[in-house]
Amino acid sequence: MGVSLKDIALRAGVSLATVSNVVNGYRPVGEATRVRVQQAIDELGYVPNLSARHLRSGRTGIIALAIPELDNPYFAELAGYAIREARSLGYTLLLEYTDSDRATELTLAEGNRSQIIDGLILSPVQLTRADVLARRSTTPLVLIGENVAEVPHDHIAIDNVAASHVAVQHLVSLGRRRIAFLGAHADTVRQPSRLRLRGYQEALATAGLPVEESLIGTASRFGRLDGLTAMRGMLARAEPPDAVFAYNDLIALGAMRAVTEAGLRIPEDIAVIGFDDIEEGRFSNPTLTTIAPDKERIGRVAVGSLIARVEGNAAEPGEVQPSFRLVTRESTLGRFTPAPPSR
Amino acid sequence: MGVSLKDIALRAGVSLATVSNVVNGYRPVGEATRVRVQQAIDELGYVPNLSARHLRSGRTGIIALAIPELDNPYFAELAGYAIREARSLGYTLLLEYTDSDRATELTLAEGNRSQIIDGLILSPVQLTRADVLARRSTTPLVLIGENVAEVPHDHIAIDNVAASHVAVQHLVSLGRRRIAFLGAHADTVRQPSRLRLRGYQEALATAGLPVEESLIGTASRFGRLDGLTAMRGMLARAEPPDAVFAYNDLIALGAMRAVTEAGLRIPEDIAVIGFDDIEEGRFSNPTLTTIAPDKERIGRVAVGSLIARVEGNAAEPGEVQPSFRLVTRESTLGRFTPAPPSR
Repeated sequence: MGVSLKDIALRAGVSLATVSNVVNGYRPVGEATRVRVQQAIDELGYVPNLSARHLRSGRTGIIALAIPELDNPYFAELAGYAIREARSLGYTLLLEYTDSDRATELTLAEGNRSQIIDGLILSPVQLTRADVLARRSTTPLVLIGENVAEVPHDHIAIDNVAASHVAVQHLVSLGRRRIAFLGAHADTVRQPSRLRLRGYQEALATAGLPVEESLIGTASRFGRLDGLTAMRGMLARAEPPDAVFAYNDLIALGAMRAVTEAGLRIPEDIAVIGFDDIEEGRFSNPTLTTIAPDKERIGRVAVGSLIARVEGNAAEPGEVQPSFRLVTRESTLGRFTPAPPSR
Repeated sequence: MGVSLKDIALRAGVSLATVSNVVNGYRPVGEATRVRVQQAIDELGYVPNLSARHLRSGRTGIIALAIPELDNPYFAELAGYAIREARSLGYTLLLEYTDSDRATELTLAEGNRSQIIDGLILSPVQLTRADVLARRSTTPLVLIGENVAEVPHDHIAIDNVAASHVAVQHLVSLGRRRIAFLGAHADTVRQPSRLRLRGYQEALATAGLPVEESLIGTASRFGRLDGLTAMRGMLARAEPPDAVFAYNDLIALGAMRAVTEAGLRIPEDIAVIGFDDIEEGRFSNPTLTTIAPDKERIGRVAVGSLIARVEGNAAEPGEVQPSFRLVTRESTLGRFTPAPPSR
């Protein structure tokens, strides 16, 4: 086996945990200590390697999180929580990008990385329940998001219909009556879009408001440009909306730009609410009202469930439904009153 | 060896490339074809695996890109280009997150993932030139960004001093005289911040303007909140600036929020320019003038150089300096004239 971490700890006069932190980079170590450990490593000729613990178990200590969009901060924020949780449990989490591509999702689900990862967290877009049921790979799999449910794997997703209800009810409570939905998707496989549209329709019905087809804007993707384009189209119509519920914050931010470009005021002329609570919406002009899913819980539970399964400590797979909350900001409640310049 | 991709291609009546695309998820494949290939896979009992090509060569077909910040879209955009380039060359690129942590950077540079990756692209923050020179791992390494240079590895970075010159000159050309820099870093190890500050100082000197310490705002991190905080502090002073050159777009966007909150106008009272050209700045109110590094070139060259080295086709390591350009938008040139609502 050559030099062990324990040999290094003895030579450097530090704890095994400290050596492990230096070697595996799990936690920061003070510079003086790090130098002492590195000296011991150099003197003993130790080559950093997968940690002994993982080697003994036949595991690599690496898990993967496969996300469909790189340019959506929602997934970057979620990944941040997942990476921190994995580190605290002694694992490394690597990110894989599927680009919402069905073949890539299938390949990953089928375990083509099984030599290098102990388990996979997948946020599928095009994968179907039937695909997951037909899966033959035995690599532990956790699913996040709304596209695939009722499968024998841990599955984590918020209640999208209920969250959309809350968003639309907020607009109704502010007296808005012509409420648009931006981000319907022609491809009905896209569950989140379908569920949020359903929540929108149900909330309008509850409020006694009609569902007008002309107030439902479709998008093929879910970025800022899609929001800008859809909103421009809607503003060109005879009677524009007085409020917008956007599928996500990126679409909402694009829509806000279109409203501002058209010389209209937010929220006086058109109120806007998004979904995801990405950081950008806390700094935009105006700041963006949104639905905030508990991203930290989603990331932590996904990693915790996966590692429990990897280590054989998991019970039956189950569904976890993290909470969400409404975060009200200027895009629905109105702009701050400008303070006089402080001089 | 069991069933080969060629066996599957013969059975499904498609090309080997098509089978490879289905199995490895490199490129989308039509649904009918995919089903035919999947049937052949099922009938022959093939288990998807690392591709035969990589197995023969002793390689895994996987490379890693280690980035210091997950919440900065600059790195997500760069990673997007790198991932696409890797796919087009038949490799998978996985993302690793260092959190700007020295121990993590050292561990990665020392090759602790060498069993599972063929090579590493690293964007270091705290790693020093000495660390890289002392490296013993033989796993191919490519460095991006400004922190480490003049090492026997391919290194890719734009000319930060020159780019900062261009940014400040743009503000000078608009008649601004009290130009602030936001995002100086107390830790002088942070090269990019130091280089951009130097470019700022040199450009002021060239324009015959004094460098005022009160117009240099420090930040410990480089996010929107840091920009907001630094700008609020500067606006509380006796004589605020008439323009801001921000270390990056995130700081610029935070600063714009502070200016708007204070009831001041952009650019009439304070013009703002950022650095990175992240997508957000094309949709913000106002849109953000910025320096646009050629991210596509950085991502593609990093991957191309690394894979050439992995496959033994690389010449001596070299320095590559991708170009940059000034992108002018509303935050310095002024807001659009609001069009009358189109009805």
